[in-house]
Amino acid sequence: MIAILSNQAPEEQLQEVIRVIENEGLSVHLSRGADRTVVGLVGTAEPRLAEHLRQMKGVEDVVKITKSYKLASRDFHPEDTVIQIGDVKIGGGELVVMGGPCAVESPEQIDEIARLVKAAGGQVLRGGAFKPRTGPYSFQGVGVEGLIMMAEAGKKHGLLTITEVMTPEYVDICAEYADILQIGTRNMQNFDLLRKLGTCGRPVLLKRGFSATYDELLNAAEYILAGGNPDVMLCERGIRTFEPYTRNTLDLAAIPALQSLSHLPVISDPSHGTGRRELVEPMAKASVAAGADGLIIEMHTDPDNSMTGDGVQSLFPDQFAGLMRDLEQLSPIVGKSFSTKKAEAESFKNWAIV
Amino acid sequence: MIAILSNQAPEEQLQEVIRVIENEGLSVHLSRGADRTVVGLVGTAEPRLAEHLRQMKGVEDVVKITKSYKLASRDFHPEDTVIQIGDVKIGGGELVVMGGPCAVESPEQIDEIARLVKAAGGQVLRGGAFKPRTGPYSFQGVGVEGLIMMAEAGKKHGLLTITEVMTPEYVDICAEYADILQIGTRNMQNFDLLRKLGTCGRPVLLKRGFSATYDELLNAAEYILAGGNPDVMLCERGIRTFEPYTRNTLDLAAIPALQSLSHLPVISDPSHGTGRRELVEPMAKASVAAGADGLIIEMHTDPDNSMTGDGVQSLFPDQFAGLMRDLEQLSPIVGKSFSTKKAEAESFKNWAIV
Amino acid sequence: MIAILSNQAPEEQLQEVIRVIENEGLSVHLSRGADRTVVGLVGTAEPRLAEHLRQMKGVEDVVKITKSYKLASRDFHPEDTVIQIGDVKIGGGELVVMGGPCAVESPEQIDEIARLVKAAGGQVLRGGAFKPRTGPYSFQGVGVEGLIMMAEAGKKHGLLTITEVMTPEYVDICAEYADILQIGTRNMQNFDLLRKLGTCGRPVLLKRGFSATYDELLNAAEYILAGGNPDVMLCERGIRTFEPYTRNTLDLAAIPALQSLSHLPVISDPSHGTGRRELVEPMAKASVAAGADGLIIEMHTDPDNSMTGDGVQSLFPDQFAGLMRDLEQLSPIVGKSFSTKKAEAESFKNWAIV
Amino acid sequence: MIAILSNQAPEEQLQEVIRVIENEGLSVHLSRGADRTVVGLVGTAEPRLAEHLRQMKGVEDVVKITKSYKLASRDFHPEDTVIQIGDVKIGGGELVVMGGPCAVESPEQIDEIARLVKAAGGQVLRGGAFKPRTGPYSFQGVGVEGLIMMAEAGKKHGLLTITEVMTPEYVDICAEYADILQIGTRNMQNFDLLRKLGTCGRPVLLKRGFSATYDELLNAAEYILAGGNPDVMLCERGIRTFEPYTRNTLDLAAIPALQSLSHLPVISDPSHGTGRRELVEPMAKASVAAGADGLIIEMHTDPDNSMTGDGVQSLFPDQFAGLMRDLEQLSPIVGKSFSTKKAEAESFKNWAIV
Repeated sequence: MIAILSNQAPEEQLQEVIRVIENEGLSVHLSRGADRTVVGLVGTAEPRLAEHLRQMKGVEDVVKITKSYKLASRDFHPEDTVIQIGDVKIGGGELVVMGGPCAVESPEQIDEIARLVKAAGGQVLRGGAFKPRTGPYSFQGVGVEGLIMMAEAGKKHGLLTITEVMTPEYVDICAEYADILQIGTRNMQNFDLLRKLGTCGRPVLLKRGFSATYDELLNAAEYILAGGNPDVMLCERGIRTFEPYTRNTLDLAAIPALQSLSHLPVISDPSHGTGRRELVEPMAKASVAAGADGLIIEMHTDPDNSMTGDGVQSLFPDQFAGLMRDLEQLSPIVGKSFSTKKAEAESFKNWAIV
Repeated sequence: MIAILSNQAPEEQLQEVIRVIENEGLSVHLSRGADRTVVGLVGTAEPRLAEHLRQMKGVEDVVKITKSYKLASRDFHPEDTVIQIGDVKIGGGELVVMGGPCAVESPEQIDEIARLVKAAGGQVLRGGAFKPRTGPYSFQGVGVEGLIMMAEAGKKHGLLTITEVMTPEYVDICAEYADILQIGTRNMQNFDLLRKLGTCGRPVLLKRGFSATYDELLNAAEYILAGGNPDVMLCERGIRTFEPYTRNTLDLAAIPALQSLSHLPVISDPSHGTGRRELVEPMAKASVAAGADGLIIEMHTDPDNSMTGDGVQSLFPDQFAGLMRDLEQLSPIVGKSFSTKKAEAESFKNWAIV
Repeated sequence: MIAILSNQAPEEQLQEVIRVIENEGLSVHLSRGADRTVVGLVGTAEPRLAEHLRQMKGVEDVVKITKSYKLASRDFHPEDTVIQIGDVKIGGGELVVMGGPCAVESPEQIDEIARLVKAAGGQVLRGGAFKPRTGPYSFQGVGVEGLIMMAEAGKKHGLLTITEVMTPEYVDICAEYADILQIGTRNMQNFDLLRKLGTCGRPVLLKRGFSATYDELLNAAEYILAGGNPDVMLCERGIRTFEPYTRNTLDLAAIPALQSLSHLPVISDPSHGTGRRELVEPMAKASVAAGADGLIIEMHTDPDNSMTGDGVQSLFPDQFAGLMRDLEQLSPIVGKSFSTKKAEAESFKNWAIV
Repeated sequence: MIAILSNQAPEEQLQEVIRVIENEGLSVHLSRGADRTVVGLVGTAEPRLAEHLRQMKGVEDVVKITKSYKLASRDFHPEDTVIQIGDVKIGGGELVVMGGPCAVESPEQIDEIARLVKAAGGQVLRGGAFKPRTGPYSFQGVGVEGLIMMAEAGKKHGLLTITEVMTPEYVDICAEYADILQIGTRNMQNFDLLRKLGTCGRPVLLKRGFSATYDELLNAAEYILAGGNPDVMLCERGIRTFEPYTRNTLDLAAIPALQSLSHLPVISDPSHGTGRRELVEPMAKASVAAGADGLIIEMHTDPDNSMTGDGVQSLFPDQFAGLMRDLEQLSPIVGKSFSTKKAEAESFKNWAIV
């Protein structure tokens, strides 16, 4: 850490800064330039110290040389984290595809979609039982019933399941029914929820806040890791920009950047990341080409009538299956493995592409 | 509401759209142009219908003519909401100033700051007992103890109190000790928390998410109002932009814009909105000139040593008192009233301005 | 300037960095921490050196301690720049108001508007002869004719004039007819144009690019100053954010921030900064409260029929005059002077407020 | 086009809107709802009319049903534009790679880099002779000399050339020496420059402004097309967001989105789009997977010593050659063709990957 003082600051202010640093048991390295004096800190500083120095008189800036997160950092954990759940390994060279509807609507709906996800080659069934909605009058999900429906569909078709949890008090019940807990973009900095996930006993997929930096995402992951849960996946799902054509701007550079900063697997969500069905397929491929460890994709058997209105970004089943076949070809070129089971995919013949 | 279809869409798609609308008990008004057909909906549509239509085949766009929130809208509630707590009226022509430290640190600290806020003319004591922090290793607040300290300081000095609540399970205890509950920027869309606030029995100050639109802020307020709590203040506290010099970009146009869209009082937070002490004073004045109903401002007796690091944006007590005197002059010009008690302000002589 | 190297970088890379710095005639101050080594540069470095170091092997980051602009910086020019044109002093304590239509349309239009601007207390007549338009099929301005019309109207009514210049080849003719040249937001980094303005012999109002940082704005000003023209005004006119309700987000913190970083006068444009007539008045007042040295405001006698479509953000003449009277009251509170001539303002009686 | 009026607007205002529309020779389709009245326009409206209506009294909003650009739109030109220059076809199924240094520095430098671009399989040599720089004290390019050096290197090694032109007066000389003219991000809305390009006789690569929407980019292209030049390539080069880790956020969804809105070829620039060498390779692959018609990539033989400081985002020659080999494998999967000539690539043995 470095503190920068203007040379117009009185000498007492510099001495006070030095005193504060030395009180923390650290030593100081002074570098006096023409206009500014740089105070280097030698030793391991508490994060709080940066905050303290920044607000001291005479201090123009404090530059952190090391990162504020540790357990999430590749510096402290050089090897890739591989999260194994049953037969599926996430982060270990296998491309993992999570598919399913925005919201669980009925036992029949989720069962049929689970069948189609499995047949196309997906490994995880996604579906929301509790839905975060901008306004109070929109459909809010079917609740605990949905968890049960999804668990049954997953078990029947041999898929893992992932569902969103929105508040600490529902963590336990979601962890009882789902294999992976998902934290939505609006809850990335719901710190009480993050703390609770540290002890939930399930892997967590943590979505990037739609205006969060990489650093903030990794600090949010740090809450879960520091709580004792090592199984965190990071998820890029699009950020908010000034462009109105897409619902969000999917920041694919986040994939290799996060993989370089951290050892945690990185998943891409081209459905929410674009908000437009016709962009999901090219952005799914681009995500894999950029090195994603997995994808989470919305698919619906009747997207025109989905209950959340997210049908506009849901693939039809045969689009989903076609995309899986393309990913099977693409994955090996970027060092990933992914296989569809062609025979089962035959069952899609009845679905017309739009 | 209007649905727009391309004329290249087959006639069946248009008919299907009409069928869906009429099934909802609404009537349809068709307008066929050269390239596009516009389907107007006559009657009161459920919000879900817009979502449904948007995802139907052939539909290019759906334009909502009316807003998705109702209770928060000035259309449905033309008069200003005035929130009265004890002697203080918020939204009724009196400028309300909430001052205090970022975090409650000790009984002595909060007592001394309360005395100074009161003496300068402020009506509400702010202070955080639970602190949302980007990383898990930063100071997280003193917790319930802090609530008690602040309640005592407020009572002793004749100030109302406001404190942040971060999670549904703490709403009751915060409501027991504080007069106003504050929802932070990261929790604006913590929907379970919003729902809980609908029945908390206390006025709520709802901060705009740092990347939220006005529409989303008003929809978040709608959750609280729809839950049965009519006493909501909206708070502009700065949005995230590409500018690195300030911590946030304080969007002052939000003040008159929100007052035009809604009847709820609008409070400005120039401390978080700028993140720099020297900008707080000009932006506080600008907020009042733009029509703010109140201000929430950080002040600390020893900002160099605040426990959260937010000292960089905290005013010194005599800066705070000087600002109050300026606001006393400025308020009447924009139709607001605010008075400092000059005599008590004398007690600031010992504080040196930085 | 400081270069930061990882301690995992080989010693040769550090030595190469040191060699490059010393080759520039500077000396080096080394500070070795546990994980990183900080190389401080002592002496005055060329701007290019930062760029060079940043791309060298082993270098993680380069932090500039001093700014890349000089002539625009308050460090090098502590006193406020006051630009005097005729009787008007910009930056010297007098609030300067520039009013007029988006575009000059006819001699009658600009003459009548000039009369109204003068009567209300404005000092400068604004109006576009050349208009930057998003698409090629929109009205592009009346061209050189417009310059002549505006010059005549200004002279007749005793107003200075300001007009936008869009390309280097038109700088000379614009400088012949107008007192102040305006650079629009899209041309803030049109470097050939900036260079040409360095020798144009007229004061320049430089609008901030709608996605430019303060640092980039000051560097753009530096081009003009370095070319030999000391008379530059900086103009905040709103930045692009995700908020759709306003055309731009007017960043008022830019006013005190730029005044702290630079000695140049700062003007605010609440018309383009909001894009909505009803927000112009509160944001004009807020700009003055934040310390603006002047305002540039659109006013039109028939905004419903303006040729550019910017009528939605143009004040009616009596709104403009009413605002001037409010500014007369507000200015002294923030240490500025501004006076309207009440008698002449009587002529507005015929205009109905909308 | 649709105009929306509140039913609280007086009937005269509605009648005035109708009168204005009918005066333009259009007919009107009225749809009266409970709260709002929708006025549909039938016939082909001038773009100016939308602007006019928007500013009329009583009008709440104007929604354009058709786009403001025509020549650039796929609606008016359904087939892909293929730009043929010599043997190279851009937009026709062949992946086009443009490689080279940020700036031309010397005849030797550009000759050697041209040789390496050709050997790796690239078809176009990029290099800047005139450089847009944020501050006036940075290296501004070698000027016309650079054009000549690059033209010679291109001719010698059988490559087309592309270079940036910054101001209308240099269009002719750049068009004399280069095969393709590039418009940089800061000049996307330099309308005088765009107009000049309409008659320059050379294909143009138009970079998206770093805060421009798709719609604005297509309107900028429309200026060139309307001037008579049909050969325009659109280039995604990253937008400005709040993320500090990357220089820009490369918006890859722009590739399929622009291809859907327009018939013009779309090129991706992963070098400026990320600003970090280690991200160029994954984002180049992702661009191709997303459907890009070409790439423009910085490569330098001595990036540690590039004159612009853009060495941090330049590939080393063997990284560039390695990427070309990967693209050769990847292209067919997304329906593109690209071939490297393996034999010539042997010459890279001497370059060490960093």
